[in-house]
Amino acid sequence: TATKRIAVTPGDGIGPEVVEQAVRCLDVLRERYDLDLEWETFDWPSHRWHQAHGDVMPANALEQLRDFDAILLGALGDPGPITDPNRYLLPDSISLAPLLQMRKGFDQWVCERPARLLPGARQYLADERARDVDMLVIRENSEGEYVAQGGRLRPGSEDEVATQMEVFTRRATNRIIRHGFEQARSRARARQESGQTRQFKTLDGRTCESQVCIITKRNALRYWGDMYTEAFAEIATEYPDVATHHELVDAACMKFVQCPWAFDVVVASNLQGDILTDLAAVLSGGMGVAPSCNLNPDDRSMPSMFEPTHGSAPDIAGQGLADPTAMLFTTARMLTWLAEETGPMQEAAEALHDAVAADLAEHSGRRRKTREIGDAVITRLGQ
Amino acid sequence: TATKRIAVTPGDGIGPEVVEQAVRCLDVLRERYDLDLEWETFDWPSHRWHQAHGDVMPANALEQLRDFDAILLGALGDPGPITDPNRYLLPDSISLAPLLQMRKGFDQWVCERPARLLPGARQYLADERARDVDMLVIRENSEGEYVAQGGRLRPGSEDEVATQMEVFTRRATNRIIRHGFEQARSRARARQESGQTRQFKTLDGRTCESQVCIITKRNALRYWGDMYTEAFAEIATEYPDVATHHELVDAACMKFVQCPWAFDVVVASNLQGDILTDLAAVLSGGMGVAPSCNLNPDDRSMPSMFEPTHGSAPDIAGQGLADPTAMLFTTARMLTWLAEETGPMQEAAEALHDAVAADLAEHSGRRRKTREIGDAVITRLGQ
Ligand SMILES: CC(C)[C@H](C(=O)O)[C@@H](O)C(=O)O
Ligand SMILES: CC(C)[C@H](C(=O)O)[C@@H](O)C(=O)O
Repeated sequence: TATKRIAVTPGDGIGPEVVEQAVRCLDVLRERYDLDLEWETFDWPSHRWHQAHGDVMPANALEQLRDFDAILLGALGDPGPITDPNRYLLPDSISLAPLLQMRKGFDQWVCERPARLLPGARQYLADERARDVDMLVIRENSEGEYVAQGGRLRPGSEDEVATQMEVFTRRATNRIIRHGFEQARSRARARQESGQTRQFKTLDGRTCESQVCIITKRNALRYWGDMYTEAFAEIATEYPDVATHHELVDAACMKFVQCPWAFDVVVASNLQGDILTDLAAVLSGGMGVAPSCNLNPDDRSMPSMFEPTHGSAPDIAGQGLADPTAMLFTTARMLTWLAEETGPMQEAAEALHDAVAADLAEHSGRRRKTREIGDAVITRLGQ
Repeated sequence: TATKRIAVTPGDGIGPEVVEQAVRCLDVLRERYDLDLEWETFDWPSHRWHQAHGDVMPANALEQLRDFDAILLGALGDPGPITDPNRYLLPDSISLAPLLQMRKGFDQWVCERPARLLPGARQYLADERARDVDMLVIRENSEGEYVAQGGRLRPGSEDEVATQMEVFTRRATNRIIRHGFEQARSRARARQESGQTRQFKTLDGRTCESQVCIITKRNALRYWGDMYTEAFAEIATEYPDVATHHELVDAACMKFVQCPWAFDVVVASNLQGDILTDLAAVLSGGMGVAPSCNLNPDDRSMPSMFEPTHGSAPDIAGQGLADPTAMLFTTARMLTWLAEETGPMQEAAEALHDAVAADLAEHSGRRRKTREIGDAVITRLGQ
């Protein structure tokens, strides 16, 4: 197995601050587990880069990143001094473009965002059962509402028409649904191995140990809604051991608040997944702790990208106040991705995850500085 | 002032059950307040109608409804016996079509869904401040993601492509945004009259007594996102007394859970509004209590439509278990719409709203039968 190489892109706002803690942890882990791991930092703060070069990252950025095994991204989005929300110096449609370019350029077609309410994390819902939430939201990350096709006719005039096309292919639909079923199976296996069980009823009365819920808005967005529904029904026949379920996206949002413990794996389109994963973040304690990853499971020659769900939080940037917990969980997820099934890389991933979780449980939402949390996790890693 | 005429369309599932209670209340109110009010019932249960006639409502349904002042709709959606969720007898894309046809046919371009957590309503959020939630979500109801343009190329094949077009016009954008600002002003006025105040900061440091938050996903759906942003900034200059705010739809969903008390008026597109109003329903105690209306404020010669936010709930239909509270709040909203500023119709509206609220407060979520709740409200109306 060759050296694993990570491109570290701190990005904007609180990005560099939380990435700093991640890199400190990687340093300790590399030493301690003798990991064959290297990283290189690409400092492309979007606003400054834009001022200097007229674009938010180098023209050949994707080329520079292509040969890495993973990208560890802090956060993007630097509106410049905010005095008028409608006149950002650098609109988010521009500063966030690299995120979407990387997802598309490296065909990172899966976005995975787990939601588990770990001890110490803030609980936003009143119902105590929210403690049992354990779901994985899988977002289609390559097409759909995000194809950026459309335009503005007669911009600014009374007669303006703005269009935005949604494009869904059966191929991308099939692969994300199949990925969902595979994840459901492997979650059920993992539960069995650790002596847990969960039960999901099928409509014909059988009991399964895992479930996939597909999300659409097929009563209003009928074309791809029907395609999703048919693809789901077809692929489900290959996984009779997995219970199936459908929710409309509006109802799903409501149920995420009312009974999130009823979900296992959730598969959603790009935009609907974007929305549901923000809700899922709330279920797992908020943006401060929610990890995320953008994966290309088919082609390991291209880098997958690991970024927390949170954004660049310009309002608290530069003050050392950002919570690096989400970034550190994300880093642990990255190590698992880089690892072979077993071995030191996987051990390091688990050590990091466990240290962050233990730190969270001990300090239970107490306000601490970014570096203080980094220090505490590093101390644990050394124990 | 002429007789106000209501078309009552009970619809499917629990629709007829909750509508029955609404009509009983209307009967009492007409008598008691001597209202110049008539209604006619149109019994078009979608599944049965479809079996008999091949369509879910009469071909001339809109013509039949056009001359009424209001439509009171129970709920739509009758999938038939559910054994396989992927093979409904009557797919929701078909049975729900009348809803969208009415909204479009009568140009009901505003959908208003208030969220206030009334005493007795279930609180889903842990934070006690959720008791202070008082927002109005205004949904653009005439275009956007709901234009039903698109199709399926090579349906069923591996190479299928499904498209769905989103179409936004400046005209509809302007009118919904302006409506939002007007509502913000009138809410501030109403608060003043009842001795309440709320304060919202603008980014340049001023304090306003109301706020409009516009929702987009302009970092990914750029074309109409930019148009919305520009239209909002332009119209905001006409309302210097109203604070302005913008949220991305994903962040808005999160903040609806984390700090819903920070919102006043929220303006969103058709689909994003659909999603946010389901979350708003949760904030006000769930689907059992959430009212909704589809208004055409420009042209009173066409009927506006009043329906609870909830659906037809086929799983509990026919058992007398449905909570009519949302339907009764919706009916009160309809009477306000039909009323002149003051007078018996407005008094009746307030009497109904207060009776339902008092009933909710007294029974605080205790499970009661549909008719029991209707009886209790009627008893209160007679007091
Ligand atoms: C920044 C934005 C373009 C992005 C998205 O919508 O995908 C973000 O919200 C996310 O969830 O990663
Ligand atoms: C039934 C459906 C088409 C409808 C919508 O999406 O508008 C419903 O969800 C609503 O919110 O009124």
